[in-house]
This record gives sequence, structure tokens and C-alpha cells, in this order.
Amino acid sequence: MDKILRINMGPDGDPKYTEEPLGDYAGFGGRGLTSAIVSKEVSPLCHPLGEDNKLVIAPGLLSGSTAAMSGRISVGCKSPLTGGIKEANAGGQASQVLARLGYAAIVLEGKPKDDTLYSVFINKDGVTIAPANSLKGLGNYDLVEKMKEAHGEKIACISIGPAGEMKMAAASVACTDMELRPTRHAGRGGVGAVMGAKGVKVIVLDDAGMKMRQPKDPEKFKEANKAWVAGLRKHAITGESLPAYGTNVLTNIINEAGAFPTNNFISGRFDGANNISGETQAETENARGGKGSATHGCHRGCVIRCSGTYYDKDGQFVSKQVEYETIWAHGANCGIDDLDAIAQLDRLDDDFGLDTIEMGATIGVAMEAGIAEFGDAKAAIRLIKEAGKGTDLGRIIGNGAAITGKVFGVERVPVVKGQAMPAYDPRAVQGIGVTYATSTMGADHTAGYSVTANILDVGGTVDPLKPEGQIELARNLQIATAILTDSTGMCLFIAFAILDQPDTFQALVDLIAAFTGQSITANDLTEQGKAILKMERDFNRQAGLTEADDRLPEYFKKEALPPHNVTFQVKDEDLDQVFNW
Amino acid sequence: MDKILRINMGPDGDPKYTEEPLGDYAGFGGRGLTSAIVSKEVSPLCHPLGEDNKLVIAPGLLSGSTAAMSGRISVGCKSPLTGGIKEANAGGQASQVLARLGYAAIVLEGKPKDDTLYSVFINKDGVTIAPANSLKGLGNYDLVEKMKEAHGEKIACISIGPAGEMKMAAASVACTDMELRPTRHAGRGGVGAVMGAKGVKVIVLDDAGMKMRQPKDPEKFKEANKAWVAGLRKHAITGESLPAYGTNVLTNIINEAGAFPTNNFISGRFDGANNISGETQAETENARGGKGSATHGCHRGCVIRCSGTYYDKDGQFVSKQVEYETIWAHGANCGIDDLDAIAQLDRLDDDFGLDTIEMGATIGVAMEAGIAEFGDAKAAIRLIKEAGKGTDLGRIIGNGAAITGKVFGVERVPVVKGQAMPAYDPRAVQGIGVTYATSTMGADHTAGYSVTANILDVGGTVDPLKPEGQIELARNLQIATAILTDSTGMCLFIAFAILDQPDTFQALVDLIAAFTGQSITANDLTEQGKAILKMERDFNRQAGLTEADDRLPEYFKKEALPPHNVTFQVKDEDLDQVFNW
Repeated sequence: MDKILRINMGPDGDPKYTEEPLGDYAGFGGRGLTSAIVSKEVSPLCHPLGEDNKLVIAPGLLSGSTAAMSGRISVGCKSPLTGGIKEANAGGQASQVLARLGYAAIVLEGKPKDDTLYSVFINKDGVTIAPANSLKGLGNYDLVEKMKEAHGEKIACISIGPAGEMKMAAASVACTDMELRPTRHAGRGGVGAVMGAKGVKVIVLDDAGMKMRQPKDPEKFKEANKAWVAGLRKHAITGESLPAYGTNVLTNIINEAGAFPTNNFISGRFDGANNISGETQAETENARGGKGSATHGCHRGCVIRCSGTYYDKDGQFVSKQVEYETIWAHGANCGIDDLDAIAQLDRLDDDFGLDTIEMGATIGVAMEAGIAEFGDAKAAIRLIKEAGKGTDLGRIIGNGAAITGKVFGVERVPVVKGQAMPAYDPRAVQGIGVTYATSTMGADHTAGYSVTANILDVGGTVDPLKPEGQIELARNLQIATAILTDSTGMCLFIAFAILDQPDTFQALVDLIAAFTGQSITANDLTEQGKAILKMERDFNRQAGLTEADDRLPEYFKKEALPPHNVTFQVKDEDLDQVFNW
Repeated sequence: MDKILRINMGPDGDPKYTEEPLGDYAGFGGRGLTSAIVSKEVSPLCHPLGEDNKLVIAPGLLSGSTAAMSGRISVGCKSPLTGGIKEANAGGQASQVLARLGYAAIVLEGKPKDDTLYSVFINKDGVTIAPANSLKGLGNYDLVEKMKEAHGEKIACISIGPAGEMKMAAASVACTDMELRPTRHAGRGGVGAVMGAKGVKVIVLDDAGMKMRQPKDPEKFKEANKAWVAGLRKHAITGESLPAYGTNVLTNIINEAGAFPTNNFISGRFDGANNISGETQAETENARGGKGSATHGCHRGCVIRCSGTYYDKDGQFVSKQVEYETIWAHGANCGIDDLDAIAQLDRLDDDFGLDTIEMGATIGVAMEAGIAEFGDAKAAIRLIKEAGKGTDLGRIIGNGAAITGKVFGVERVPVVKGQAMPAYDPRAVQGIGVTYATSTMGADHTAGYSVTANILDVGGTVDPLKPEGQIELARNLQIATAILTDSTGMCLFIAFAILDQPDTFQALVDLIAAFTGQSITANDLTEQGKAILKMERDFNRQAGLTEADDRLPEYFKKEALPPHNVTFQVKDEDLDQVFNW
């Protein structure tokens, strides 16, 4: 994994590719690499859909090795949604396969000379870029079926649906999972629109004949990986809760905490929560029984195994087991408590290539605008279908909550830097509010998941309803996340184990050190995390973002959230200290 | 004119008003006053449509007096279009009438407790605020008819159409002209949306029984006004060209200069220019002959008299004589060379309460997106009608070019700070490019009309195609405009005479000095202009705008504009010196 594949899409001639050594980028992986390339090579003032933007797809530093949980892939660019730098990452098989093919990154550059759509195929023999106009308009599901017909079943796909082709700012980049379904998405920030602007519909990866990536110190690596796996299995959340219920184990917990945003963030508690909880979902899946409904991993090498499969009443596949964020976005946030409808919305989003968080928040805003009633699942399905078709209304919806709020003159729009807030109300989880406000990515729970100490008593305990301690919490988690998960390829859920178990944290440090052959300490990694955040902040500053963009919308400071009747209390001047380490 | 009328619309109870002396705001008028109030009283991070924004309506400092040309009124707020401070001004009768009623400003504050729409009536006996839900959805023309029925013909109206009620970011505030038609608009920046958010449909003004405002030094004032009028009549542009052809005298001049943006800024020359020029328009109007087609003023006290009336083939009134900016926006920029169609678009915009510049630019972007063909006048009319109706597509259009570009994934969108560029391509008039880039208002020709020295050889000559001299030109014009026209109530067109004729400039200084009774020099006025710009810049900075927002879209630096095949050459670091005086 020591090469960068650059594909210049035009406009001067047909697409052509070059390969080059990592050079100055050596040592970076995942988000560290995407942000390094974007901040060095992309003009902060360029149009996100123009030829000067670049789409960087980078496996994590440990991806393609036997390190457990190392299957996440990063997609970076200047974001059409936030106007700042963007890294969105996804699970699925693509990261491991791309890494084994020897690529630290694919960089899509330039812009096709016309509206030809292309496919890219990469295997041990090289890279093929071909016009693929017959794929135009295909949903991700049909697209992957066509790729299976053409290339067999041992592939992984990275693709966009119609939303990406239409360059919608909520368009995602899909990655196939272990069942070769396009269910794992680099969802946030419109990375799919940038792939669409580059004219690339799908990148098909086949690593047949390629080997697992080898650590520099195999003995130490093997030992560290053993301790690593043991640590993950030992922790209650990674060893029990997530495998049993998937991420949706959170619905009852967050609802109980009064932090489950309901009806476009009007309340923190949803009457219908029990109908859509992880427990109910597991029960439903088990009762319907289809093949593969037991929890499993989204990629090979996963030991947490929080994924599952959702079938309808007749045992027909609908979608992956719906993740917590989507259960919330399409559920509570729109007043919908119907699991079947939510699973259908999840499937539509995955098929059209749309970010489920952004879509749920957007429909919430549309409902506040009176386009539909809260709780109307049929209307929500219709709205997502409009987005997939690209009707006028669908174009609005597909461009996300901020645009939808502007178009319909809505004041209560839960976004930061133009990106919709995820499934935790920042008034009832003030630490995540600090992350939403200050993250370089716009509102993003994964950038610094303060829900840990605020709600789950993981990595300490910080009162979620008070401002005290939130800055430090969000700062430390943002630094750690930038390097330990987003750059290594590790799944975010390892955070629970490494925050609570010092020996598991050390196992991860050892794993990185043994893989790279360098004597790396926890302090070194902290410094790397800070360096990544600094690059991103610098890009954003040059792109025009300021302290004013590191704020929640004013109504979170004014409207008290039931049931705790609390407003967001963290002071502006304290928010400005998050990156002052 | 020494009182501020504050109307608190709610939400705590029904609307109520208070009157207060100018206090700290004494000495400010027009834009100086709106920007002072907004920058002091409005939180830069508030939602533009929320209760914390304020809409300030302020006559110029000399409005209501006998000073010739002093009839412009300023409307200020935090802009829903730019996210920064906004002042848009309009001609018509409202300024003189409001000033004579004794008000330096009306400030609409708060937000109605429900969706009741209100009307405000002000005469010598006081202020009446009443629910007026029967006016909901009315176009400005029908609305004014109803006001005439209720209050007689000696009124002036300040109102919004359906676009303002729908809080569209391109919604204008209409003022009635001398014929009591709603043809004069504070168009830019969505001030109409803020009036809509305040729940005020119309402010009806009746100054019967009120007196002309009196200068402190009547003798000196009379003398200065005489010199002032003589100076305006003497200059070729204010004395001849504008009276003969109206503002549309510019079409042939700007087209000849290769600076007439055509088909969404793809070229600087329009084949159909002659069909829509001021000369052709005057010929057409004269041939059709209806009553009032001769040029006249938009307000009493005007000596330039560049207004006219446009009739259809059957002699029926269509709209005011269409202004140059609109001729361009709905004409060349959309590839349309049909005067009748353009007049119809002008009428629709005025009726719905939409900014014609923003609408023309938006339709150009929509045409680039493939929503309609360039040159298709019927499609353009249909699109504006959609905006008036508030269909999904209409909502997009009504929110302006930047939003339309985002929704349809268009890269070439001619905006700065989210506001559409007017009728001069910044590549072929580089001085106006500097104004577009750096104005506190977003792209705005009136903020520093460098077309003077760049094209018209007024106030000197600066080569329009080269970067040299443009910074100083745009800086000086922005300072002068902020105080000499935008704050005094003087029409911008006086600029031609005061730039070329030192004695006419001195007459204006004397007019201000005699009116206020203070010994004011040209230097004092320059300092006041700088102070206004500084207030506005400070507000914008706190609202999150930076140097990155003081830039043209990147494509103006990369795409050469025919026929001169020139790109925008002024360097970024030089743009940052505009306010470094």
C-alpha cells in the first residue's frame, strides 16, 4: 500500500491515470491522508463541483492487514455541503481490498470533457477506465448487480447512485459489504456529488491474487492483535451490547436520557421510541428469521459484529439492519415509529446514494415547513423517492437540511456549517454539542463522540446537561478520533474499549507501531491527531470559515428542550478554546 | 424627522409601537442610519428570519426637504441572501412622505405570535397597526389598489408581494411612485423576506397636513439647491442622456464595451442588444404613445427624470419604463431580445415583489442547468410565475441564483456573498469587479459604480480591462456612495455630475451643511462614509464573513470573456487593501 493512483478525468482529453509513490504523504492513512492531500492540493476557494476539487479515497493505515476492525475507508474533498474540508468514512469491504491492491489512495482529479460517465476497474493486472453511459441513473443496488455479472462475486464496489450523478449535496459514496450489497456509505458532506462531478459512477476492486498486507514486525503485531481482540471482546459494549442489538441499542438509552431529537429537535423524548428500539428491531428480525439475520460484521476482520439484515414480513430482504443514526433520523426526528417504513427509507437512501442522517434531518425541516405532517411515513417515503428522481422538490431535499430550510423559509434548521446534526440533541448532551459546533466537518457525532462520558459513562463521566468539562472532553475525543480511528481504518466503536481499558489502548498503539515498524507512543499519536485537525482548520479558514461557523444555531441557546428543559449552555468564548491546546 | 418609530410585532402579545427620539443616532440618515441601528442592535449570528433581526426603513437625511433628488429610502437588516448586513434603497414617493411625517426610521422588531399578517397606517394623527389577513397573497399592484380604495390617492405605500410573504431570499420591498404604482423597489438582499417574517404586508403613509422639512439655514440652502439643480442640468448624462432614454441608455454603451453579460456571463456582447436598447425602447414607447410615456421622475423633486412608462401594442400599461439592470437581467443574460417580454417580466417581478437583478441572474443559472433554453422568453415568464405561486421550482427560483445553482449543481454562478452580479461583467469592467468582490453588500453595482471612470470617462479614466487603478477607484466610490447618496437620500445618478463638476460637488456639500446647520466639509463627509463602511464590515466579520467572501467566483479568473478575451486580473491581496485607507 505504497502507491497513489491519480486519475485525471479531463477536460483535456480522455481520462488517464498515473501511479506515484506516496512521497511526502508517507505515514498518512485514511483521514490523515485525505486531509493532507486536499489541504495541500485543493484551492480552498475552488467550486466543490469544479475541476480544481479532488476526490481522495484512502484506506486506513492498517487496512488490508490482519489487524481486527481495520476496514474503514476515508473519502475526502472540499465539501459541497459545508464549503470546508471533508472526510467521510465507511465500512464494508472496499478498504481492505483497495489496500491489498497496493493503493494508499485513489485521487480523482479534473473533470470530464463532456457528460460521459465512467467506470474504473482495478485488479492485480492494473487499472481500466472505460465509458459506462449504460450505467447512468442506476441505483446502487442494480449497479452492483451489473458489476457482479461483469466481474464476478469476488469484488468490492465504491459507487454513487442517482443522487451523486445529480451532484446533490447530500449524496453519499457507497461501499459494498460482505454480502456484496451497497449498504456502507461515506455519507456525509456530499462526497458523492464530487464523485459525480468527476464523472465516475463506480470503482470496482478485485484483489484476487493479492496478499494480505504484512507488518514490519510480524511477531509483535500478532501479539498486539491478540490483546486487541481480547480487549474488544471483554468490554460490555463492544463485546455484548453491539453484537446483540447493533448500534440501535442506543435508541432506548438516548431516549431515556432525554436526548433523542424528536419532530425536528422540538423534544428530547419520543413516544414511539420503544417501537423502533434495538430490542424491538432484534425481536422483529429474529421472528422474521431470514437467512443472515444474526448479527455479523460489515467487513472481514470485524470482531464486534454489529451488522444485521432486515427482512419484511414475507422474509424478503429490505435493507441492512438499520443503524441507530438512521432509526433516529427517519424515525423520531420525523415522528415515525414504524420499523418497516424506516427500513424502506434506509434502502431507498442506500440505493439513491443519499446520506441517511442528512435526509432524516431534511425531512424533519420539510415537515416543519408544512410539506408533510410529522409521523407521516408514506410522505417521508415519497419525499425520498422525489430526491431519487430529481424532481424539483427532490432536488431541494437532496441538497440537505440547510438548503431546504432556506428554500422554504424555515428558521429552526439543525445544522452546523450547513451539515445536519445527528441523533443526539446538543442541549441534552452538551459535550456532543461542542463537537457539532467546532468539528472541522460540520455537525458530526463521529468527530468527537462525547456521548461516551456524557451518557454511557465510558472514559469517565461528565454531566451531559451542564457546560462544565465539555470543552476538554470534546477536544480530547476530536484529537483521538482524527488519528486513532479515522486514520488507521479502525471502526469508531473501538473507542469504548480503548477509553475504558488502558491495556486495550496500549494494544492499539502496539499494533500501529508493529505494523509500521516505528517506535510510536501514545503521545506521538496525539501529536499526529492535532496535526490533522490543524491542517483541516487551516483549510477551512482559507475557505472562509471562522469562529462564527463554530456555533450552533441560535435557537439551541434560546429554546429549552423537554424533558430536561435545558438550553445549550457552553459559552462562545469557551468553544473558541477547543483547538487551543 | 427626529423620531424613530419602533413596532414590536410580538411574539409576546399583539404588535405595539413606541416612538423615541433619535438619541445616539442623531445625524444619521438613510443607509447610515439603517446600518447604525442594525450593527448596534442586531446579533450578527441571528437567523435573518427570526425575531432577533430588525427591519429598518429610513428616509435619507435630506428627504422630505426641497433638496432636488433627495427621494431615496433605505431598507436595512441582516440579509437572508448574503448572511451579512444589508441596505437596499429605492426611489418613489415613500421617502419624502415618511420624512415629512417626522420619522427618521421605522424599525420592525420581533415576530408575530402567529401567522397573522398586518398593515400599518401612518398619518398626521398617528400610527395604526391592524390585522390584514384579507391582503394575504396579493400582488403589489392589487394591494396598492386596495389601499387607494381605503385611504385615497394621496398616499405612498411600502409593501411586499407574495415573495416577501413566502420569505424568499430574493424578495423586495416595493415603494409606490408618483403614479401610485408599486414600481420602485428596495430590491436586493431579500429585505422583503424580512418584512414578511415580521408579518407586515404594507405600510401606508399619508402626509396630508404635514410640512416640508425645513433647513437650519434656509438662505444658504436655497442658494445651494439652485447651484445643485443647475449642475445636474448642465452635465451631459444627467441633463441629456438619462432624460432622453432613461437608464437603458447604457445597453448600447455597455454592449459596445464588451461588458454586457450574455447567456449567464458567457460573453460580453449580445447579438440582440439593439432590439432592447434605450434608443429602441424610447422609439417603441413614443410610437405606442400612451399617456405619460414621456420621461418623468420617480419622485417629486427629481430634476433628472429618467423614468417612463411602458405600454403594450394596444396602448395598455404594462410596467414602468424598464430600467437598464432589468433590461440586461431578463434580456441579454437570458439571451432574450424581446422588449415586450422583458417588460412583462419586469411587471411580474414588481407585482410578486422580487428583485429583477437577482431574478434575471437566477433564470440565467436555471438556463445553464437546462431548465429552459437561453432565449426562451416564454419559459422565463413561466419561471417567474412559478416563483410568484411558490411552487417547488418557484421556491428555488425565488431564493436566488446561489441557491438555484446549488440545487441544480451548477458551477458557473455569478454571485458574491450569495448575491447576484448586476449588468456589468467584472472581467470587462474590472473596477466594478472590485466593488462586487469587496462591497459589504455582496455583488452590487451601486455600492461603488466604477463604470464611471472605467467606461463613461466620468471622474477620470481608468482602463476597464486592466487591474491598475481599480482598487483606488472602487475604494473612493464606495466611501463616497455610502454617505453622499445612500445616506442623504440622493439618487445615485447625481454621481455623474459631482464627479465631473467640482462646483456641483460643492453645492451638495453646501446643501447638507445648510440643511443640518453644521459646518460640514468634504473631508467630514469622507470620514462619515468610512465610518459607515467600517460598521458594516465589523458586522459582517462577526457574522462570519472573511476575506474569502471578498472574492469573485474562481471562474472569473479562469474563463476569458469574449470579445476582449480577458479574465479578472485584480489580485486577491490587492482586494484586501480596499478598506485599508
